[in-house]
Amino acid sequence: MFATDTIAAISTPPGKGGVAIIRISGEAAFEIAERCFAPRSGKPLSAYPARHAVYGCILSENRPIDDGLAVRFPAPASYTGENMVEICCHGGILLTQKVLEETFAQGAVQAAPGEFTRRAFVNGKLSLSRAEAVGRLLEAQTEAQMKLAAPDATDALEGEVGAIYGLLLSLLSSLFADIDYPEEDLGELSVEEILSRLREAQTRLDALLATYRTGHAIAEGIPCVICGRPNVGKSSLYNLLCGEDRAIVTSEAGTTRDVLEKTVACGQVTLLLCDTAGLRDAESAAEKIGVERSRARIKEAELIFAVFDASAPLTEEDRALLEELAARRDVCRVGILNKTDLPAVLAPADIAPACDEVLSLSALTGDKQPLCELVEKLFLSERITPGHRAILSGARQAAAVRRAAECVQSAQAAFAAGFAHDVAASDIERALSALGEISGREVSEQIVADIFSHFCVGK
Amino acid sequence: MFATDTIAAISTPPGKGGVAIIRISGEAAFEIAERCFAPRSGKPLSAYPARHAVYGCILSENRPIDDGLAVRFPAPASYTGENMVEICCHGGILLTQKVLEETFAQGAVQAAPGEFTRRAFVNGKLSLSRAEAVGRLLEAQTEAQMKLAAPDATDALEGEVGAIYGLLLSLLSSLFADIDYPEEDLGELSVEEILSRLREAQTRLDALLATYRTGHAIAEGIPCVICGRPNVGKSSLYNLLCGEDRAIVTSEAGTTRDVLEKTVACGQVTLLLCDTAGLRDAESAAEKIGVERSRARIKEAELIFAVFDASAPLTEEDRALLEELAARRDVCRVGILNKTDLPAVLAPADIAPACDEVLSLSALTGDKQPLCELVEKLFLSERITPGHRAILSGARQAAAVRRAAECVQSAQAAFAAGFAHDVAASDIERALSALGEISGREVSEQIVADIFSHFCVGK
Repeated sequence: MFATDTIAAISTPPGKGGVAIIRISGEAAFEIAERCFAPRSGKPLSAYPARHAVYGCILSENRPIDDGLAVRFPAPASYTGENMVEICCHGGILLTQKVLEETFAQGAVQAAPGEFTRRAFVNGKLSLSRAEAVGRLLEAQTEAQMKLAAPDATDALEGEVGAIYGLLLSLLSSLFADIDYPEEDLGELSVEEILSRLREAQTRLDALLATYRTGHAIAEGIPCVICGRPNVGKSSLYNLLCGEDRAIVTSEAGTTRDVLEKTVACGQVTLLLCDTAGLRDAESAAEKIGVERSRARIKEAELIFAVFDASAPLTEEDRALLEELAARRDVCRVGILNKTDLPAVLAPADIAPACDEVLSLSALTGDKQPLCELVEKLFLSERITPGHRAILSGARQAAAVRRAAECVQSAQAAFAAGFAHDVAASDIERALSALGEISGREVSEQIVADIFSHFCVGK
Repeated sequence: MFATDTIAAISTPPGKGGVAIIRISGEAAFEIAERCFAPRSGKPLSAYPARHAVYGCILSENRPIDDGLAVRFPAPASYTGENMVEICCHGGILLTQKVLEETFAQGAVQAAPGEFTRRAFVNGKLSLSRAEAVGRLLEAQTEAQMKLAAPDATDALEGEVGAIYGLLLSLLSSLFADIDYPEEDLGELSVEEILSRLREAQTRLDALLATYRTGHAIAEGIPCVICGRPNVGKSSLYNLLCGEDRAIVTSEAGTTRDVLEKTVACGQVTLLLCDTAGLRDAESAAEKIGVERSRARIKEAELIFAVFDASAPLTEEDRALLEELAARRDVCRVGILNKTDLPAVLAPADIAPACDEVLSLSALTGDKQPLCELVEKLFLSERITPGHRAILSGARQAAAVRRAAECVQSAQAAFAAGFAHDVAASDIERALSALGEISGREVSEQIVADIFSHFCVGK
């Protein structure tokens, strides 16, 4: 399934910087490093203790190209679980590439995206849920995302999943004992005891599943669009949401400039905020395409901020929007009565029928706290605090827990209907298998390949 | 002169990557790291040997935020010569910033650009010429630039400068002995011997100074413009020069799009190539500004590629360019008879009077080798080969050698004129002082500040 090539890659971000790291992992890592790196002392790299940062010359075609550090990490106590070397050189773009090329010249091959972490998983150095958390940590754009991707968050999740796994496993053992040796008294559980344990597993699985609402809102983020007719203050709201946390905001220009996306923290909720300033009665063909794309974003949204000017009566365009909203019962619709700094003409009741929530604010002069609290109320079942409990933060994990819960439900039904124990046992086995997917105890090659293909090279 | 604050910075390039390094340097580096990093073993970081890569949790507000490595480098065997710690975390943009902020919370201050390397210089860990070479290594865009910035290139330069320094110093000692104890026979040198040694120093200084032509052409690069009337093949020549080495080319859009610059390798010579496609009879005001800027670049150029269509008779525009060229005796003018793939109408003699060199080629179908060889012939007094000798590669170094050579010349004149030994001794002292500037033995604060201010943060 996995190549035993020795792989190498630049593990630091691309670009110019003080320092860059080239990672080598695999059976030949030490030999390759010996040929790329000459300790200043004249001794070979292998003469130094493991994990010792050795100063020396980095060689390219047997010529010193730079000075830097090399550290050997012998298997299995390395990131990948294989023999590894990290070479630390100066961070020039061309220089770093040359050092990497020298490792290739000495027998390494270019690592595929995520290949270091994939090897770590295969060698049992980290679980699949931790690997996914690392992926989310690299991408984290808000504090809450970072907290949910921290090691203790994974520990909490794996702890809870492990506890449910243990509960079901001991139940399964008892059932097997009963099936295999029905004549012996191996402390057989009563049907009531079995059902009680299954109910406990069910309760815990349901509780865990419920946390995905929070995990989704933080880790994956809520696609959100701001819409409204011109001059109601859409841009002010956009700036209000982006501005204060601008430092942790990235802007990505879409395929067209009409759709602009920003990831912003709205309280602990991550909003994949989409500006639909382009939403207007288009005249040119190019504009029409832009508007169509904006409308597509509105279709994909999980949250709509519909902005109205509270200081003016509803216009035809406002009424058209309200009609559209009334038909969108599948998403969360927050009506925003903007411009409360001006004398009010509209009242919440004017837009409430088409909205799930209505909030009055002044995007220009106000603060975003009330909106953040509303969004948290709508999307978080709990807040992330130090020592928070297990939270599912990915669709893959949630799907596995959902399947486990269904299997446990099915096992309960089997018992309740008085089926033979082996029917329920097979359900419990399937539940265990689903839970095993979370840490990666039981997982298909395809899932593993999918997960790691989203990593960057050098990770 | 230098703060004793403990400094910290992200030393890896900005952006997302597998791994990032946060460096801490100064007296409190170890204490700060203890509070930001908890080894997985439960032991304190200080319990591990120096330079040992320790696995553990990176803390933010006493909460694990990531797992990674920490390495302690006790003074003086560290990059800066101070106590240093390198913390290696996952390379998320926000995460890396959080780790850095935690070092600030624990007492570190943000390092200024180049401050790590400046401290290394102040603590005698690296010479000024090596620090400059590191700066050039980070910026290197061509193979030759990288080779000239490699450690052995600095070793060769410092070796030659040191040898001349030693020669002059021993001469100075003899002169002082003679001045201080004229009655004693301390093996006083004859005037002939003194003059012979000064001549040797002079010869070596002149030879060293001559290498700056090569060093300038490689390390600093030759500002070069391509000009010519429309349709003579300027763009083809531009592509020919950029294309083959595109991987080591960076493009920088100028203040206007009219002036486009690329750094390209032309053999071992670095050309700061400037496309003056904008050079034309401008009609609009905006265009006029563009043309003015192009003309400014032509004024600053050290090399002009003047392109002519060899398959067509000279036009009025061609003749105007030839007239301009004839007046530009201050730069190197290479006339290029392009389109040799078509039947020739022009001969080299038609443009030779206005040019220093003429080359016939077909930019569209040909290769750039003959042009590279010509440029190397024009700008390199030697090629960079493994084990090449000392080469001056910066204006600051060259100016110091030039001053030393002038002082030695002056000392020779003093002896030849029969002045007292102390006149010549003072010249030799000034020569030593100038040479001392190269490694930084004797150098002003201002020069040091200038050099390191061009480094990036974290270096």
